[in-house]
Amino acid sequence: MPLYRLTLAYDGAEFSGWQAQGPGGPRTVQGVLEAALQRLAGAPVRVAGAGRTDAGAHALGQVASFELPRDWRPDALQRALNALLPADVRALHAAPAPAGFHARRSAVAKHYRYELDSGPVQSPLRRRYAGHVAFALDASAVREAGRAFVGRHDFASLQSAGGSVKTSVRTITRSEARLEAGTLVYEVVADGFLRQMVRSIVGGLVEVGRGAWRIEDLRAALARHDRRGWPAPAEARGLVLVSVAYPGETTGVR
Amino acid sequence: MPLYRLTLAYDGAEFSGWQAQGPGGPRTVQGVLEAALQRLAGAPVRVAGAGRTDAGAHALGQVASFELPRDWRPDALQRALNALLPADVRALHAAPAPAGFHARRSAVAKHYRYELDSGPVQSPLRRRYAGHVAFALDASAVREAGRAFVGRHDFASLQSAGGSVKTSVRTITRSEARLEAGTLVYEVVADGFLRQMVRSIVGGLVEVGRGAWRIEDLRAALARHDRRGWPAPAEARGLVLVSVAYPGETTGVR
Repeated sequence: MPLYRLTLAYDGAEFSGWQAQGPGGPRTVQGVLEAALQRLAGAPVRVAGAGRTDAGAHALGQVASFELPRDWRPDALQRALNALLPADVRALHAAPAPAGFHARRSAVAKHYRYELDSGPVQSPLRRRYAGHVAFALDASAVREAGRAFVGRHDFASLQSAGGSVKTSVRTITRSEARLEAGTLVYEVVADGFLRQMVRSIVGGLVEVGRGAWRIEDLRAALARHDRRGWPAPAEARGLVLVSVAYPGETTGVR
Repeated sequence: MPLYRLTLAYDGAEFSGWQAQGPGGPRTVQGVLEAALQRLAGAPVRVAGAGRTDAGAHALGQVASFELPRDWRPDALQRALNALLPADVRALHAAPAPAGFHARRSAVAKHYRYELDSGPVQSPLRRRYAGHVAFALDASAVREAGRAFVGRHDFASLQSAGGSVKTSVRTITRSEARLEAGTLVYEVVADGFLRQMVRSIVGGLVEVGRGAWRIEDLRAALARHDRRGWPAPAEARGLVLVSVAYPGETTGVR
């Protein structure tokens, strides 16, 4: 059966995350996408997603792979999906995928962005798309803390309970935190991410940014490879899966 | 009774506009603000708003005025309101108001911003806060068209049916349109606005930006002082009331 690769964007505010949870389960992105594809295909379609985003987290460039019973022109497939999908999920681009392509297993890198507003009152226009802390953050401390995550490391300190991966070693190739008009913007690219890893990193950035941790405290807590002693993950609503790269492609450019 | 001035921000997506429509009516910003103030005051409180924003339109700096039966410390009033208001409305700042102050009648200028995404598919993360057209817009045409509205003019062409003002002459002191990565951003400051005036201006900018109107066509349609022949107003969801200025204050700076 012909195999497709679909790039999609979604507002995660009204979804219980990416992953389908079976009939009668909560509203998920995978669930609404599979329902739309089933209407197109006339038969159940199983979708693989590159990143299993949390409830409330968003995507600008999630990638899904699936087989369809017949050939579709990619642009017709993309438009037909947008006619069937709810307004908070949009199909951006469809393409035929090479044999053996799998959105998650074939991925070589992912780019996430996290935004966190700081200050006494968060703008209500930002509340779906950014986390919030009521205190101020120090720009240079945040910037330096962001750089501490680059490299190949055991990130066990950042792995939330419930993860079930064989190894917690990952390679982060970009890790940049900056303050823009009171908003912490964090960009991270890695070959893979542990469960709640980006949100946990941001939890650590906040500790440094508010002065509760020095950079050395952050480095030590990271080197301890122990989730206890690491601050709570930042709220999911500030997290966006920006893009996913496959062999021969690059990411982190947008 | 002590008179207060309150600056507030709201996400208009789930409101039927600013203006309260009486008991049993739809959810409005004025309605939820008056309900919160009534809980604080123990008695009905009537609020005046500087701008009667449309259903779906937003505010970063709406101003409201009202009397309360007793004195409040301004910061305590602001925090108490935020504890009572829904998450899509936030009290940003409260202050005692001089005798005779009225949020709408005392205003000398208002600043609105409109954002309109262009391109085949709008990002679902933008759908609550920006209008959308599927075609491309010309940056220099849009920029030139934006400047055409500056000055003291009869803007009857931009007034939607249902307006009931004595004169349609207004003075626009700032009118700037630009394209940023495919998004039309329009900033306008005036001493007052007719009903749906900003959305109508954006409707005209789109006509020029897509090449259906030349600048001269826009100028002629404006000079005709006739709503017929002017394009439909842009969608309310792209509109934000940025700030309101009172005697001795300036606006347009944010």
